[in-house]
Amino acid sequence: MDCEDIVFHHVMPAQLRWSDVDQFGHVNNSVYFQLFDMCKTKYVLEVVGQDTLKQVAIVVASIKADFLAPIYYPDEIVIQSKITHMGNKSFIIRQRAVNIRTKEVKCEGYTTMVTYDMTNNCSIPIPDDFRAKVEAFENP
Amino acid sequence: MDCEDIVFHHVMPAQLRWSDVDQFGHVNNSVYFQLFDMCKTKYVLEVVGQDTLKQVAIVVASIKADFLAPIYYPDEIVIQSKITHMGNKSFIIRQRAVNIRTKEVKCEGYTTMVTYDMTNNCSIPIPDDFRAKVEAFENP
Amino acid sequence: MDCEDIVFHHVMPAQLRWSDVDQFGHVNNSVYFQLFDMCKTKYVLEVVGQDTLKQVAIVVASIKADFLAPIYYPDEIVIQSKITHMGNKSFIIRQRAVNIRTKEVKCEGYTTMVTYDMTNNCSIPIPDDFRAKVEAFENP
Amino acid sequence: MDCEDIVFHHVMPAQLRWSDVDQFGHVNNSVYFQLFDMCKTKYVLEVVGQDTLKQVAIVVASIKADFLAPIYYPDEIVIQSKITHMGNKSFIIRQRAVNIRTKEVKCEGYTTMVTYDMTNNCSIPIPDDFRAKVEAFENP
Repeated sequence: MDCEDIVFHHVMPAQLRWSDVDQFGHVNNSVYFQLFDMCKTKYVLEVVGQDTLKQVAIVVASIKADFLAPIYYPDEIVIQSKITHMGNKSFIIRQRAVNIRTKEVKCEGYTTMVTYDMTNNCSIPIPDDFRAKVEAFENP
Repeated sequence: MDCEDIVFHHVMPAQLRWSDVDQFGHVNNSVYFQLFDMCKTKYVLEVVGQDTLKQVAIVVASIKADFLAPIYYPDEIVIQSKITHMGNKSFIIRQRAVNIRTKEVKCEGYTTMVTYDMTNNCSIPIPDDFRAKVEAFENP
Repeated sequence: MDCEDIVFHHVMPAQLRWSDVDQFGHVNNSVYFQLFDMCKTKYVLEVVGQDTLKQVAIVVASIKADFLAPIYYPDEIVIQSKITHMGNKSFIIRQRAVNIRTKEVKCEGYTTMVTYDMTNNCSIPIPDDFRAKVEAFENP
Repeated sequence: MDCEDIVFHHVMPAQLRWSDVDQFGHVNNSVYFQLFDMCKTKYVLEVVGQDTLKQVAIVVASIKADFLAPIYYPDEIVIQSKITHMGNKSFIIRQRAVNIRTKEVKCEGYTTMVTYDMTNNCSIPIPDDFRAKVEAFENP
Protein backbone atom coordinates (compact mmCIF):
# COMPACT_ATOMS: atom_id res chain seq x y z
CA MET A 1 0.00 0.00 0.00
CA ASP A 2 2.91 2.28 0.58
CA CYS A 3 5.88 1.21 -1.48
CA GLU A 4 6.36 4.54 -3.20
CA ASP A 5 9.27 6.76 -2.26
CA ILE A 6 7.55 9.77 -0.80
CA VAL A 7 9.28 11.73 1.98
CA PHE A 8 7.28 13.94 4.32
CA HIS A 9 9.34 16.75 5.85
CA HIS A 10 6.47 18.13 7.92
CA VAL A 11 5.43 15.75 10.67
CA MET A 12 3.60 16.61 13.86
CA PRO A 13 1.90 14.60 16.58
CA ALA A 14 -1.90 14.92 16.76
CA GLN A 15 -3.38 14.62 20.21
CA LEU A 16 -6.61 12.63 20.39
CA ARG A 17 -9.46 13.61 22.68
CA TRP A 18 -11.88 11.27 24.40
CA SER A 19 -14.69 13.16 22.64
CA ASP A 20 -13.22 12.24 19.21
CA VAL A 21 -14.33 8.64 19.55
CA ASP A 22 -17.67 7.27 18.36
CA GLN A 23 -19.86 4.43 19.56
CA PHE A 24 -17.68 1.81 17.82
CA GLY A 25 -14.58 3.07 19.64
CA HIS A 26 -13.32 4.56 16.36
CA VAL A 27 -12.16 8.13 15.94
CA ASN A 28 -15.01 9.69 13.94
CA ASN A 29 -14.17 10.54 10.33
CA SER A 30 -14.87 14.26 10.84
CA VAL A 31 -12.04 14.37 13.38
CA TYR A 32 -9.45 13.38 10.77
CA PHE A 33 -10.29 16.59 8.95
CA GLN A 34 -9.83 18.60 12.16
CA LEU A 35 -6.39 17.02 12.53
CA PHE A 36 -5.47 17.55 8.87
CA ASP A 37 -6.69 21.15 9.20
CA MET A 38 -4.61 21.73 12.32
CA CYS A 39 -1.49 20.46 10.57
CA LYS A 40 -2.11 22.34 7.31
CA THR A 41 -2.43 25.54 9.33
CA LYS A 42 0.83 24.77 11.16
CA TYR A 43 2.55 23.90 7.86
CA VAL A 44 1.76 27.24 6.24
CA LEU A 45 2.55 29.19 9.43
CA GLU A 46 5.90 27.46 9.81
CA VAL A 47 6.98 27.11 6.19
CA VAL A 48 5.41 30.16 4.55
CA GLY A 49 5.22 32.42 7.60
CA GLN A 50 2.85 35.09 8.86
CA ASP A 51 4.38 37.93 6.81
CA THR A 52 3.65 36.25 3.48
CA LEU A 53 0.24 35.15 4.73
CA LYS A 54 -0.76 38.80 5.19
CA GLN A 55 -0.91 39.09 1.40
CA VAL A 56 -3.05 36.05 0.82
CA ALA A 57 -5.74 33.88 2.38
CA ILE A 58 -5.94 30.15 1.76
CA VAL A 59 -9.27 28.48 1.14
CA VAL A 60 -10.09 24.77 0.94
CA ALA A 61 -11.54 23.93 -2.48
CA SER A 62 -11.73 20.15 -2.23
CA ILE A 63 -10.73 17.22 -0.05
CA LYS A 64 -10.31 13.57 -0.80
CA ALA A 65 -9.51 11.08 1.94
CA ASP A 66 -9.07 7.32 2.02
CA PHE A 67 -9.74 5.70 5.39
CA LEU A 68 -7.42 2.69 5.38
CA ALA A 69 -7.82 1.50 8.96
CA PRO A 70 -9.64 2.80 12.05
CA ILE A 71 -7.89 4.89 14.70
CA TYR A 72 -8.71 3.85 18.26
CA TYR A 73 -8.40 5.92 21.41
CA PRO A 74 -5.70 6.34 22.73
CA ASP A 75 -3.59 5.50 19.66
CA GLU A 76 -0.60 7.75 19.19
CA ILE A 77 -0.80 9.42 15.82
CA VAL A 78 1.33 11.76 13.73
CA ILE A 79 0.12 13.75 10.77
CA GLN A 80 2.53 13.99 7.83
CA SER A 81 1.97 16.87 5.39
CA LYS A 82 3.54 17.65 2.03
CA ILE A 83 2.68 20.14 -0.69
CA THR A 84 2.96 17.89 -3.73
CA HIS A 85 1.79 20.25 -6.44
CA MET A 86 1.62 24.02 -6.97
CA GLY A 87 -0.43 25.37 -9.88
CA ASN A 88 -1.03 29.01 -10.70
CA LYS A 89 -3.73 29.83 -8.12
CA SER A 90 -3.99 26.59 -6.20
CA PHE A 91 -1.90 23.85 -4.63
CA ILE A 92 -2.36 20.33 -3.33
CA ILE A 93 -1.34 19.22 0.14
CA ARG A 94 -1.08 15.49 0.75
CA GLN A 95 -1.45 14.29 4.32
CA ARG A 96 -1.31 11.03 6.19
CA ALA A 97 -2.38 9.94 9.65
CA VAL A 98 0.17 7.38 10.82
CA ASN A 99 0.27 5.27 13.98
CA ILE A 100 3.59 6.16 15.64
CA ARG A 101 4.23 2.70 17.04
CA THR A 102 3.09 0.41 14.23
CA LYS A 103 3.87 2.83 11.33
CA GLU A 104 0.50 1.86 9.88
CA VAL A 105 -1.00 4.51 7.58
CA LYS A 106 -4.54 5.00 8.90
CA CYS A 107 -5.75 7.64 6.49
CA GLU A 108 -4.42 9.40 3.42
CA GLY A 109 -5.83 12.75 2.33
CA TYR A 110 -5.41 15.21 -0.51
CA THR A 111 -6.61 18.78 -0.13
CA THR A 112 -6.76 21.30 -2.94
CA MET A 113 -6.33 24.80 -1.59
CA VAL A 114 -6.78 28.09 -3.40
CA THR A 115 -4.83 31.28 -2.73
CA TYR A 116 -7.48 33.91 -2.23
CA ASP A 117 -7.92 37.66 -1.91
CA MET A 118 -10.53 38.09 0.85
CA THR A 119 -10.99 41.82 0.10
CA ASN A 120 -11.81 41.45 -3.59
CA ASN A 121 -13.28 37.99 -3.12
CA CYS A 122 -11.40 36.22 -5.88
CA SER A 123 -8.61 33.70 -6.31
CA ILE A 124 -5.14 35.14 -6.93
CA PRO A 125 -1.83 33.67 -8.11
CA ILE A 126 0.34 32.03 -5.45
CA PRO A 127 2.75 34.82 -4.35
CA ASP A 128 6.36 34.30 -5.47
CA ASP A 129 7.83 34.14 -1.97
CA PHE A 130 5.10 31.68 -0.91
CA ARG A 131 6.12 29.45 -3.82
CA ALA A 132 9.85 29.85 -3.15
CA LYS A 133 9.52 28.98 0.54
CA VAL A 134 7.48 25.85 -0.14
CA GLU A 135 9.92 24.71 -2.83
CA ALA A 136 12.89 25.25 -0.52
CA PHE A 137 11.16 23.30 2.25
CA GLU A 138 10.02 20.39 0.11
CA ASN A 139 13.28 20.04 -1.85
CA PRO A 140 15.98 20.64 0.71
CA MET B 1 -36.61 16.90 40.78
CA ASP B 2 -38.56 19.62 39.10
CA CYS B 3 -41.58 20.62 41.12
CA GLU B 4 -40.83 24.36 41.01
CA ASP B 5 -42.96 26.64 38.87
CA ILE B 6 -40.51 27.86 36.28
CA VAL B 7 -41.76 28.67 32.78
CA PHE B 8 -39.37 28.74 29.84
CA HIS B 9 -40.55 30.98 26.99
CA HIS B 10 -37.57 30.21 24.74
CA VAL B 11 -37.58 26.62 23.57
CA MET B 12 -35.83 25.21 20.51
CA PRO B 13 -35.08 21.72 19.23
CA ALA B 14 -31.41 20.71 19.25
CA GLN B 15 -30.40 18.34 16.48
CA LEU B 16 -28.00 15.60 17.56
CA ARG B 17 -25.17 14.41 15.31
CA TRP B 18 -23.77 10.90 15.11
CA SER B 19 -20.38 12.40 15.99
CA ASP B 20 -21.77 13.74 19.30
CA VAL B 21 -21.88 10.28 20.83
CA ASP B 22 -19.04 8.67 22.80
CA GLN B 23 -17.97 5.09 23.29
CA PHE B 24 -20.71 4.47 25.87
CA GLY B 25 -23.40 5.60 23.42
CA HIS B 26 -23.86 8.79 25.47
CA VAL B 27 -23.79 12.28 24.04
CA ASN B 28 -20.43 13.63 25.27
CA ASN B 29 -20.67 16.29 27.96
CA SER B 30 -18.86 18.89 25.80
CA VAL B 31 -21.72 18.66 23.28
CA TYR B 32 -24.26 19.91 25.84
CA PHE B 33 -22.30 23.15 25.97
CA GLN B 34 -22.38 23.42 22.16
CA LEU B 35 -26.15 23.03 22.32
CA PHE B 36 -26.54 25.50 25.18
CA ASP B 37 -24.28 27.91 23.25
CA MET B 38 -26.34 27.54 20.09
CA CYS B 39 -29.54 28.33 21.96
CA LYS B 40 -28.07 31.22 23.97
CA THR B 41 -26.94 32.78 20.71
CA LYS B 42 -30.41 32.34 19.21
CA TYR B 43 -32.04 33.72 22.37
CA VAL B 44 -30.10 36.98 22.26
CA LEU B 45 -30.50 37.33 18.48
CA GLU B 46 -34.25 36.78 18.69
CA VAL B 47 -35.07 38.57 21.93
CA VAL B 48 -32.48 41.35 22.05
CA GLY B 49 -31.83 41.68 18.33
CA GLN B 50 -28.86 42.51 16.13
CA ASP B 51 -29.23 46.30 16.46
CA THR B 52 -28.82 46.29 20.22
CA LEU B 53 -26.04 43.72 19.94
CA LYS B 54 -23.97 46.17 17.90
CA GLN B 55 -23.45 48.18 21.09
CA VAL B 56 -22.32 45.29 23.22
CA ALA B 57 -20.60 41.92 23.09
CA ILE B 58 -21.53 39.08 25.43
CA VAL B 59 -18.85 36.96 27.05
CA VAL B 60 -19.25 33.74 29.05
CA ALA B 61 -17.86 34.22 32.57
CA SER B 62 -18.88 30.94 34.16
CA ILE B 63 -20.93 27.84 33.58
CA LYS B 64 -22.46 25.31 35.94
CA ALA B 65 -24.21 22.23 34.66
CA ASP B 66 -25.81 19.24 36.34
CA PHE B 67 -25.98 16.09 34.24
CA LEU B 68 -29.11 14.38 35.48
CA ALA B 69 -29.40 11.55 32.95
CA PRO B 70 -27.54 10.57 29.78
CA ILE B 71 -28.74 11.58 26.32
CA TYR B 72 -28.59 8.76 23.76
CA TYR B 73 -28.49 9.05 20.00
CA PRO B 74 -31.02 9.61 18.41
CA ASP B 75 -33.02 11.05 21.32
CA GLU B 76 -35.09 14.09 20.42
CA ILE B 77 -34.12 16.99 22.59
CA VAL B 78 -35.22 20.58 23.12
CA ILE B 79 -33.20 23.25 24.87
CA GLN B 80 -35.14 25.60 27.11
CA SER B 81 -33.51 28.95 27.93
CA LYS B 82 -34.46 31.69 30.38
CA ILE B 83 -32.65 34.76 31.64
CA THR B 84 -33.36 34.44 35.34
CA HIS B 85 -31.29 37.31 36.68
CA MET B 86 -29.88 40.60 35.38
CA GLY B 87 -27.28 42.43 37.44
CA ASN B 88 -25.50 45.63 36.48
CA LYS B 89 -22.91 44.23 34.06
CA SER B 90 -23.85 40.57 33.93
CA PHE B 91 -26.81 38.24 33.68
CA ILE B 92 -27.59 34.58 34.28
CA ILE B 93 -29.20 32.34 31.70
CA ARG B 94 -30.68 29.07 32.90
CA GLN B 95 -31.00 26.27 30.39
CA ARG B 96 -32.33 22.74 30.29
CA ALA B 97 -31.95 19.87 27.86
CA VAL B 98 -35.25 18.00 27.86
CA ASN B 99 -36.28 14.81 26.09
CA ILE B 100 -39.26 15.79 23.94
CA ARG B 101 -41.09 12.50 24.30
CA THR B 102 -40.47 11.58 27.94
CA LYS B 103 -40.21 15.20 29.26
CA GLU B 104 -37.23 14.03 31.29
CA VAL B 105 -34.78 16.84 32.15
CA LYS B 106 -31.39 15.49 31.06
CA CYS B 107 -29.20 18.42 32.01
CA GLU B 108 -29.66 21.73 33.74
CA GLY B 109 -27.20 24.57 33.21
CA TYR B 110 -26.58 28.07 34.49
CA THR B 111 -24.35 30.44 32.55
CA THR B 112 -23.18 33.79 33.83
CA MET B 113 -22.58 36.16 30.94
CA VAL B 114 -20.96 39.58 31.00
CA THR B 115 -21.85 42.51 28.74
CA TYR B 116 -18.56 43.59 27.26
CA ASP B 117 -16.98 46.36 25.23
CA MET B 118 -14.61 44.57 22.82
CA THR B 119 -12.94 47.84 21.74
CA ASN B 120 -11.98 49.05 25.21
CA ASN B 121 -11.71 45.53 26.58
CA CYS B 122 -13.84 45.98 29.67
CA SER B 123 -17.22 44.98 31.01
CA ILE B 124 -19.99 47.57 30.60
CA PRO B 125 -23.48 47.96 32.05
CA ILE B 126 -26.28 46.05 30.34
CA PRO B 127 -27.77 48.56 27.85
CA ASP B 128 -31.26 49.81 28.77
CA ASP B 129 -32.98 48.48 25.66
CA PHE B 130 -31.28 45.08 26.14
CA ARG B 131 -32.69 44.97 29.65
CA ALA B 132 -36.14 46.15 28.56
CA LYS B 133 -36.42 43.58 25.78
CA VAL B 134 -35.41 40.71 28.05
CA GLU B 135 -37.85 41.82 30.74
CA ALA B 136 -40.69 42.09 28.22
CA PHE B 137 -39.89 38.62 26.86
CA GLU B 138 -39.57 36.91 30.22
CA ASN B 139 -42.60 38.60 31.85
CA PRO B 140 -45.18 38.70 29.09
CA MET C 1 -22.94 24.36 -11.97
CA ASP C 2 -25.83 21.98 -11.56
CA CYS C 3 -27.68 21.45 -14.79
CA GLU C 4 -27.75 17.65 -14.55
CA ASP C 5 -31.01 15.91 -13.79
CA ILE C 6 -30.35 14.38 -10.40
CA VAL C 7 -33.22 14.04 -7.93
CA PHE C 8 -32.54 13.65 -4.21
CA HIS C 9 -35.33 11.86 -2.36
CA HIS C 10 -33.65 12.12 1.04
CA VAL C 11 -33.47 15.70 2.25
CA MET C 12 -33.10 16.87 5.82
CA PRO C 13 -32.32 20.20 7.49
CA ALA C 14 -28.95 20.45 9.25
CA GLN C 15 -28.88 22.70 12.26
CA LEU C 16 -25.75 24.83 12.58
CA ARG C 17 -24.11 25.53 15.92
CA TRP C 18 -22.29 28.69 16.92
CA SER C 19 -19.24 26.50 17.66
CA ASP C 20 -19.20 25.29 14.00
CA VAL C 21 -17.88 28.63 12.79
CA ASP C 22 -14.20 29.52 12.44
CA GLN C 23 -12.34 32.78 12.69
CA PHE C 24 -13.37 33.83 9.17
CA GLY C 25 -17.05 33.36 10.04
CA HIS C 26 -17.14 30.25 7.83
CA VAL C 27 -18.44 26.90 8.95
CA ASN C 28 -15.25 24.83 9.36
CA ASN C 29 -14.75 22.13 6.73
CA SER C 30 -14.73 19.34 9.36
CA VAL C 31 -18.31 20.27 10.27
CA TYR C 32 -19.57 19.44 6.76
CA PHE C 33 -18.47 15.86 7.40
CA GLN C 34 -20.35 15.81 10.71
CA LEU C 35 -23.46 16.94 8.86
CA PHE C 36 -22.97 14.45 6.01
CA ASP C 37 -22.40 11.74 8.62
CA MET C 38 -25.56 12.66 10.50
CA CYS C 39 -27.62 12.46 7.31
CA LYS C 40 -26.01 9.24 6.07
CA THR C 41 -26.88 7.64 9.40
CA LYS C 42 -30.46 8.89 9.16
CA TYR C 43 -30.70 7.68 5.53
CA VAL C 44 -29.74 4.11 6.37
CA LEU C 45 -31.89 4.06 9.51
CA GLU C 46 -34.92 5.33 7.61
CA VAL C 47 -34.49 3.57 4.27
CA VAL C 48 -32.77 0.33 5.23
CA GLY C 49 -34.02 0.07 8.81
CA GLN C 50 -32.66 -1.22 12.09
CA ASP C 51 -33.59 -4.87 11.45
CA THR C 52 -31.47 -5.15 8.31
CA LEU C 53 -28.68 -3.17 9.98
CA LYS C 54 -28.36 -5.88 12.64
CA GLN C 55 -26.81 -8.12 9.97
CA VAL C 56 -24.27 -5.63 8.74
CA ALA C 57 -22.15 -2.69 9.81
CA ILE C 58 -21.30 0.16 7.44
CA VAL C 59 -17.81 1.61 7.35
CA VAL C 60 -16.56 4.74 5.56
CA ALA C 61 -13.84 3.80 3.06
CA SER C 62 -13.31 7.13 1.33
CA ILE C 63 -14.73 10.62 1.07
CA LYS C 64 -14.44 13.27 -1.60
CA ALA C 65 -15.90 16.71 -1.12
CA ASP C 66 -15.91 19.88 -3.21
CA PHE C 67 -16.38 23.09 -1.27
CA LEU C 68 -18.16 25.34 -3.74
CA ALA C 69 -19.01 28.29 -1.50
CA PRO C 70 -18.67 29.02 2.22
CA ILE C 71 -21.52 28.46 4.67
CA TYR C 72 -21.99 31.31 7.14
CA TYR C 73 -23.71 31.19 10.51
CA PRO C 74 -26.74 31.24 10.72
CA ASP C 75 -27.41 30.10 7.13
CA GLU C 76 -30.25 27.60 6.83
CA ILE C 77 -28.98 24.45 5.21
CA VAL C 78 -30.40 21.14 4.06
CA ILE C 79 -28.40 18.03 3.31
CA GLN C 80 -29.52 16.00 0.30
CA SER C 81 -28.42 12.35 0.17
CA LYS C 82 -28.67 9.75 -2.57
CA ILE C 83 -27.13 6.30 -3.00
CA THR C 84 -25.96 6.56 -6.60
CA HIS C 85 -24.13 3.27 -6.96
CA MET C 86 -24.20 -0.15 -5.31
CA GLY C 87 -21.39 -2.59 -6.02
CA ASN C 88 -20.93 -6.03 -4.49
CA LYS C 89 -19.53 -5.04 -1.08
CA SER C 90 -19.66 -1.26 -1.23
CA PHE C 91 -21.85 1.62 -2.28
CA ILE C 92 -21.51 5.32 -2.98
CA ILE C 93 -23.63 7.98 -1.32
CA ARG C 94 -23.70 11.41 -2.92
CA GLN C 95 -24.56 14.35 -0.70
CA ARG C 96 -25.03 18.06 -1.06
CA ALA C 97 -25.24 20.92 1.41
CA VAL C 98 -27.73 23.42 -0.03
CA ASN C 99 -28.78 26.85 1.22
CA ILE C 100 -32.55 26.60 1.68
CA ARG C 101 -33.28 30.19 0.70
CA THR C 102 -30.90 30.74 -2.23
CA LYS C 103 -30.80 27.11 -3.46
CA GLU C 104 -27.03 27.52 -3.77
CA VAL C 105 -25.11 24.24 -3.56
CA LYS C 106 -22.41 24.93 -0.94
CA CYS C 107 -20.68 21.57 -0.92
CA GLU C 108 -20.95 18.33 -2.83
CA GLY C 109 -19.64 15.10 -1.35
CA TYR C 110 -19.22 11.48 -2.38
CA THR C 111 -18.67 8.81 0.25
CA THR C 112 -17.75 5.23 -0.49
CA MET C 113 -19.05 2.93 2.22
CA VAL C 114 -18.31 -0.74 2.76
CA THR C 115 -20.73 -3.30 4.20
CA TYR C 116 -18.80 -4.95 6.98
CA ASP C 117 -18.95 -7.87 9.38
CA MET C 118 -17.65 -6.48 12.70
CA THR C 119 -17.38 -9.95 14.27
CA ASN C 120 -15.19 -11.51 11.59
CA ASN C 121 -13.62 -8.19 10.70
CA CYS C 122 -14.09 -8.36 6.94
CA SER C 123 -16.19 -6.78 4.21
CA ILE C 124 -19.30 -8.73 3.19
CA PRO C 125 -21.73 -8.48 0.25
CA ILE C 126 -24.54 -5.95 0.57
CA PRO C 127 -27.48 -7.98 1.96
CA ASP C 128 -30.33 -8.54 -0.53
CA ASP C 129 -32.98 -6.74 1.47
CA PHE C 130 -30.60 -3.79 2.01
CA ARG C 131 -30.17 -3.58 -1.74
CA ALA C 132 -33.88 -3.98 -2.45
CA LYS C 133 -34.89 -1.26 0.01
CA VAL C 134 -32.40 1.24 -1.39
CA GLU C 135 -33.48 0.51 -4.96
CA ALA C 136 -37.13 0.94 -4.06
CA PHE C 137 -36.38 4.24 -2.32
CA GLU C 138 -34.20 5.68 -5.07
CA ASN C 139 -36.40 4.56 -7.98
CA PRO C 140 -39.92 5.10 -6.73
CA MET D 1 -6.49 35.39 41.89
CA ASP D 2 -4.31 32.48 42.67
CA CYS D 3 -2.43 32.98 45.90
CA GLU D 4 -3.50 29.69 47.49
CA ASP D 5 -1.00 26.90 47.88
CA ILE D 6 -2.40 24.23 45.60
CA VAL D 7 -0.02 21.87 43.85
CA PHE D 8 -1.11 19.98 40.73
CA HIS D 9 0.81 16.73 40.19
CA HIS D 10 -0.98 15.87 36.95
CA VAL D 11 -0.13 18.28 34.16
CA MET D 12 -0.41 17.65 30.44
CA PRO D 13 -0.22 19.82 27.34
CA ALA D 14 -3.48 20.26 25.41
CA GLN D 15 -3.08 20.69 21.69
CA LEU D 16 -5.38 23.27 20.16
CA ARG D 17 -6.99 22.77 16.74
CA TRP D 18 -7.81 25.46 14.21
CA SER D 19 -11.43 24.26 14.37
CA ASP D 20 -11.55 25.04 18.13
CA VAL D 21 -11.64 28.78 17.50
CA ASP D 22 -14.80 30.84 17.07
CA GLN D 23 -15.56 33.99 15.13
CA PHE D 24 -13.96 36.19 17.81
CA GLY D 25 -10.69 34.25 17.57
CA HIS D 26 -11.42 32.72 20.99
CA VAL D 27 -11.33 29.02 21.73
CA ASN D 28 -15.03 28.15 22.08
CA ASN D 29 -16.15 27.36 25.63
CA SER D 30 -17.28 23.81 24.67
CA VAL D 31 -13.67 23.01 23.72
CA TYR D 32 -12.46 23.60 27.30
CA PHE D 33 -14.67 20.71 28.35
CA GLN D 34 -13.19 18.48 25.64
CA LEU D 35 -9.74 19.33 26.98
CA PHE D 36 -10.75 18.79 30.61
CA ASP D 37 -12.37 15.50 29.57
CA MET D 38 -9.24 14.37 27.74
CA CYS D 39 -7.10 15.07 30.79
CA LYS D 40 -9.52 13.51 33.29
CA THR D 41 -9.50 10.35 31.20
CA LYS D 42 -5.71 10.35 31.14
CA TYR D 43 -5.56 11.03 34.89
CA VAL D 44 -7.67 8.00 35.78
CA LEU D 45 -5.91 5.77 33.24
CA GLU D 46 -2.48 6.78 34.54
CA VAL D 47 -3.16 7.06 38.28
CA VAL D 48 -5.89 4.47 38.85
CA GLY D 49 -5.10 2.17 35.94
CA GLN D 50 -7.08 -0.04 33.57
CA ASP D 51 -7.29 -3.01 35.96
CA THR D 52 -9.12 -1.07 38.65
CA LEU D 53 -11.27 0.64 36.02
CA LYS D 54 -12.66 -2.74 34.96
CA GLN D 55 -14.60 -2.81 38.25
CA VAL D 56 -16.10 0.63 37.91
CA ALA D 57 -17.27 3.20 35.38
CA ILE D 58 -16.99 6.92 36.03
CA VAL D 59 -19.81 9.25 35.12
CA VAL D 60 -19.86 13.07 35.11
CA ALA D 61 -22.51 14.36 37.52
CA SER D 62 -21.81 18.07 37.39
CA ILE D 63 -19.34 20.62 36.08
CA LYS D 64 -18.57 24.16 37.12
CA ALA D 65 -16.12 26.29 35.19
CA ASP D 66 -14.94 29.88 35.51
CA PHE D 67 -13.64 31.44 32.31
CA LEU D 68 -11.04 33.89 33.55
CA ALA D 69 -9.49 34.97 30.25
CA PRO D 70 -9.88 33.90 26.61
CA ILE D 71 -7.58 31.38 24.97
CA TYR D 72 -6.42 32.38 21.49
CA TYR D 73 -5.13 30.13 18.75
CA PRO D 74 -2.27 29.12 18.77
CA ASP D 75 -1.69 29.67 22.52
CA GLU D 76 0.21 26.87 24.21
CA ILE D 77 -1.85 25.47 27.03
CA VAL D 78 -1.45 22.86 29.75
CA ILE D 79 -4.27 21.30 31.71
CA GLN D 80 -3.60 20.71 35.40
CA SER D 81 -5.79 18.14 37.17
CA LYS D 82 -6.15 17.21 40.83
CA ILE D 83 -8.65 15.09 42.72
CA THR D 84 -9.37 17.38 45.66
CA HIS D 85 -12.10 15.44 47.38
CA MET D 86 -13.27 11.82 47.59
CA GLY D 87 -16.66 11.06 49.14
CA ASN D 88 -18.29 7.66 49.39
CA LYS D 89 -19.59 7.27 45.82
CA SER D 90 -18.26 10.41 44.15
CA PHE D 91 -15.18 12.58 43.88
CA ILE D 92 -14.28 16.06 42.70
CA ILE D 93 -11.57 16.77 40.17
CA ARG D 94 -10.29 20.33 39.94
CA GLN D 95 -8.71 21.40 36.66
CA ARG D 96 -7.07 24.48 35.23
CA ALA D 97 -6.18 25.57 31.73
CA VAL D 98 -2.92 27.52 32.00
CA ASN D 99 -0.95 29.40 29.35
CA ILE D 100 2.50 27.78 29.39
CA ARG D 101 4.42 30.95 28.60
CA THR D 102 2.59 33.56 30.67
CA LYS D 103 1.43 31.19 33.47
CA GLU D 104 -1.95 32.89 33.27
CA VAL D 105 -4.84 30.71 34.48
CA LYS D 106 -7.40 30.88 31.65
CA CYS D 107 -10.08 28.66 33.08
CA GLU D 108 -10.71 26.83 36.32
CA GLY D 109 -13.08 23.88 36.46
CA TYR D 110 -14.54 21.55 39.06
CA THR D 111 -16.13 18.27 37.99
CA THR D 112 -18.07 15.98 40.28
CA MET D 113 -17.79 12.40 39.10
CA VAL D 114 -19.68 9.38 40.32
CA THR D 115 -18.34 5.82 40.47
CA TYR D 116 -20.90 3.75 38.66
CA ASP D 117 -21.90 0.16 37.98
CA MET D 118 -22.95 0.12 34.30
CA THR D 119 -24.45 -3.39 34.57
CA ASN D 120 -26.78 -2.67 37.47
CA ASN D 121 -27.15 0.97 36.54
CA CYS D 122 -26.43 2.47 39.94
CA SER D 123 -23.72 4.39 41.74
CA ILE D 124 -21.32 2.31 43.84
CA PRO D 125 -18.72 3.14 46.48
CA ILE D 126 -15.28 4.18 45.24
CA PRO D 127 -13.26 0.91 45.23
CA ASP D 128 -10.55 0.73 47.93
CA ASP D 129 -7.62 0.43 45.52
CA PHE D 130 -8.99 3.33 43.44
CA ARG D 131 -9.02 5.44 46.60
CA ALA D 132 -5.58 4.27 47.69
CA LYS D 133 -3.96 5.02 44.34
CA VAL D 134 -5.42 8.52 44.16
CA GLU D 135 -4.34 9.26 47.73
CA ALA D 136 -0.82 8.04 47.05
CA PHE D 137 -0.63 10.15 43.88
CA GLU D 138 -2.01 13.33 45.42
CA ASN D 139 -0.05 13.11 48.69
CA PRO D 140 3.36 11.85 47.63
